Amino acid sequence: MKILVVNAGSSSLKYQLIDMDNKSVLAKGLCERIGIDGSNLQHTCVVKGLDKIKIENPMKDHGDAIKMVIDALIDTEHGAISSMDEIGAVGHRVVHGAEEFTDSTIITEAVLKQLEKCTPLAPLHNPPNIIGIEACKKIMPNTPMVAVFDTAFHQTMPPEAFMYALPYEYYEKDRIRKYGFHGTSHKYVSQQAVKILGKPAEELKIVTCHLGNGSSITAVKGGKCIDTSMGFTPLDGVPMGTRTGSMDPAVMTFLMNKGMTAQEIDDLVNKKSGVAGVSGVSSDFRDLDDAVLEGNERAKLALDMFVYQVRKYIGAYAAAMGGIDALVFTAGIGENNGPMRKDIVSGLEYMGIAIDDEKNLTRGTVDVSAADARVKTLVIPTDEEMMIAIDTQRLVEG
Amino acid sequence: MKILVVNAGSSSLKYQLIDMDNKSVLAKGLCERIGIDGSNLQHTCVVKGLDKIKIENPMKDHGDAIKMVIDALIDTEHGAISSMDEIGAVGHRVVHGAEEFTDSTIITEAVLKQLEKCTPLAPLHNPPNIIGIEACKKIMPNTPMVAVFDTAFHQTMPPEAFMYALPYEYYEKDRIRKYGFHGTSHKYVSQQAVKILGKPAEELKIVTCHLGNGSSITAVKGGKCIDTSMGFTPLDGVPMGTRTGSMDPAVMTFLMNKGMTAQEIDDLVNKKSGVAGVSGVSSDFRDLDDAVLEGNERAKLALDMFVYQVRKYIGAYAAAMGGIDALVFTAGIGENNGPMRKDIVSGLEYMGIAIDDEKNLTRGTVDVSAADARVKTLVIPTDEEMMIAIDTQRLVEG
Repeated sequence: MKILVVNAGSSSLKYQLIDMDNKSVLAKGLCERIGIDGSNLQHTCVVKGLDKIKIENPMKDHGDAIKMVIDALIDTEHGAISSMDEIGAVGHRVVHGAEEFTDSTIITEAVLKQLEKCTPLAPLHNPPNIIGIEACKKIMPNTPMVAVFDTAFHQTMPPEAFMYALPYEYYEKDRIRKYGFHGTSHKYVSQQAVKILGKPAEELKIVTCHLGNGSSITAVKGGKCIDTSMGFTPLDGVPMGTRTGSMDPAVMTFLMNKGMTAQEIDDLVNKKSGVAGVSGVSSDFRDLDDAVLEGNERAKLALDMFVYQVRKYIGAYAAAMGGIDALVFTAGIGENNGPMRKDIVSGLEYMGIAIDDEKNLTRGTVDVSAADARVKTLVIPTDEEMMIAIDTQRLVEG
Repeated sequence: MKILVVNAGSSSLKYQLIDMDNKSVLAKGLCERIGIDGSNLQHTCVVKGLDKIKIENPMKDHGDAIKMVIDALIDTEHGAISSMDEIGAVGHRVVHGAEEFTDSTIITEAVLKQLEKCTPLAPLHNPPNIIGIEACKKIMPNTPMVAVFDTAFHQTMPPEAFMYALPYEYYEKDRIRKYGFHGTSHKYVSQQAVKILGKPAEELKIVTCHLGNGSSITAVKGGKCIDTSMGFTPLDGVPMGTRTGSMDPAVMTFLMNKGMTAQEIDDLVNKKSGVAGVSGVSSDFRDLDDAVLEGNERAKLALDMFVYQVRKYIGAYAAAMGGIDALVFTAGIGENNGPMRKDIVSGLEYMGIAIDDEKNLTRGTVDVSAADARVKTLVIPTDEEMMIAIDTQRLVEG
């Protein structure tokens, strides 16, 4: 089966066409500036080994965008399939499934209605996801579609992990609780880890560290998420590119009392903080590494804070699960920054973690554990599109 | 030397007179409703083994209160000393010393001015502390006075532990950072633990759990605090009687967007949340235990959340220090709730922690570790007044 994976943002639409028979990407690309001057499609036909092409063409909405994507996919020159009918199913990334969705799901009219109910919890992200779904349904009305949620993998958290200690009615009425995000990535790498470890998922306790521009850490016990560092929103947890991560909630009311509005505070803590805010240099960890080499102390502080908080989460989740069998690093920083992996696990020998310096230089999926380490430390490239395709196939084929 | 320890609140004043020669409490008591109808002094002369007496008498301000305290202390019947001159020094509890005070300090005019500068960070607590100091200075102008801060013990935290990932200027200009509280208690019990362990403080890594109506956990390495769970304010960390503890800061802006004011949100998260808010039963953990016995599920949830978060902090601080040598429980819950201690350390065998069920029934200062546990688990009653007196003597005697 060939599956089209779609990730629709407010003015963008990313896609991959995946052949599930051999788990290979046939084509992939991105529509940018949908509904804005300068709309363009960037498309790469992977299966023919062609270079990326860029087509500038007005796209007034996501419907126009998906039409262009289909045209590119069936183009005789740059395409990867001969007809739209070859697309067996479409898998859509959806950010927030709240408590409504504990797993990926076939999209029906009822599901679309339930999805609308999740929108207040993700007012910026869910509406474009829904628009993307509707645009695809219009063009491919007979193709089965599946929604895959960033939150669903975390829905197995027990109440003591997901509840905040607010009065209970704030959970019942306002649905304030920890949801967690990056679930598709944590699910994918934890399943890959289980395969590598060669034991039943039920017997394994794994901490997965998705460390990129956005970062989150998840505790996976017996194949199920039991805790995760992001919370009600993707703000919580470790410091990120421009997000504060966790801090005393009273800082927010202190800022309110200084005269800031909710919108100003939201912008501050989500877009101007994190390692960018601390360092004053950049939200890109590679820029910070360069700045540290030039002696920039605040860049060093920002990285130290990040490393320290990730290390504490690993310790906290080990305590939550009664020790761990494996530690997994993934995403931009987790996959590519060996020295930072080494820094993060510094001092964790007491819980059986140790990294081999030589192995830690290797790229790709690799076991970087020291020979005598009780806990396996694995680097596993994440692949959210593949996970979406896997879930889509599972549900469509029933 | 006899030292008077004073803890002045907005309408109350607690005191203890301690004889440092044998570390014994000579007398202690409490003025209530200062400046309000129904002012009264409750005084106990411990050294003579007398029962508590209650004297109702108008006290228009803290000056009146401290005069009544001195009268009670030198009273021929209920007193413990024959003259005010026997008081060698006064130790004052002060909540917030910000970055100005990294240790207890002799109170001078300059110190009082610096103290005023800390007030914006503790607008409810520092002003009555300062009023208490000034009232005592007026009545005992020649007696040396020492300020002992709840925050000072935590001033050894490194920047990666105390900084929040806000833009750096919020630290520089607004002094937003983690300060930590309960420092006097954490200092006292960690010093007691060092004595019990019989090794140099420099070699020891200890996690101290101050669990009471307010709770905080501290990582003490080489005798110094390197991290603590309370933050910019005492709101952060584990769920407490009526405080939320840590949660996604974005919950605060969500509440703002629902129309709540900063004051309303502050009240909600500090006074109506915590185990009281979750359970809907009580902020008193003993009431929750009773409710659980009656089958109340939300009371059970509240306690489960508390236990789980404390356990995670122990794990996080073990990671921060590279394993631990000792775990200390103190304060109302930590000292008296053996079953909860047992729940908290459940699953922590991987890091060497195990409690002996028999020993865990003992009251007072006790090593409750299982015989084969690598980590010592200690119950140590806290004594903040004694710690204040010890610091006061140290500074006064130079």
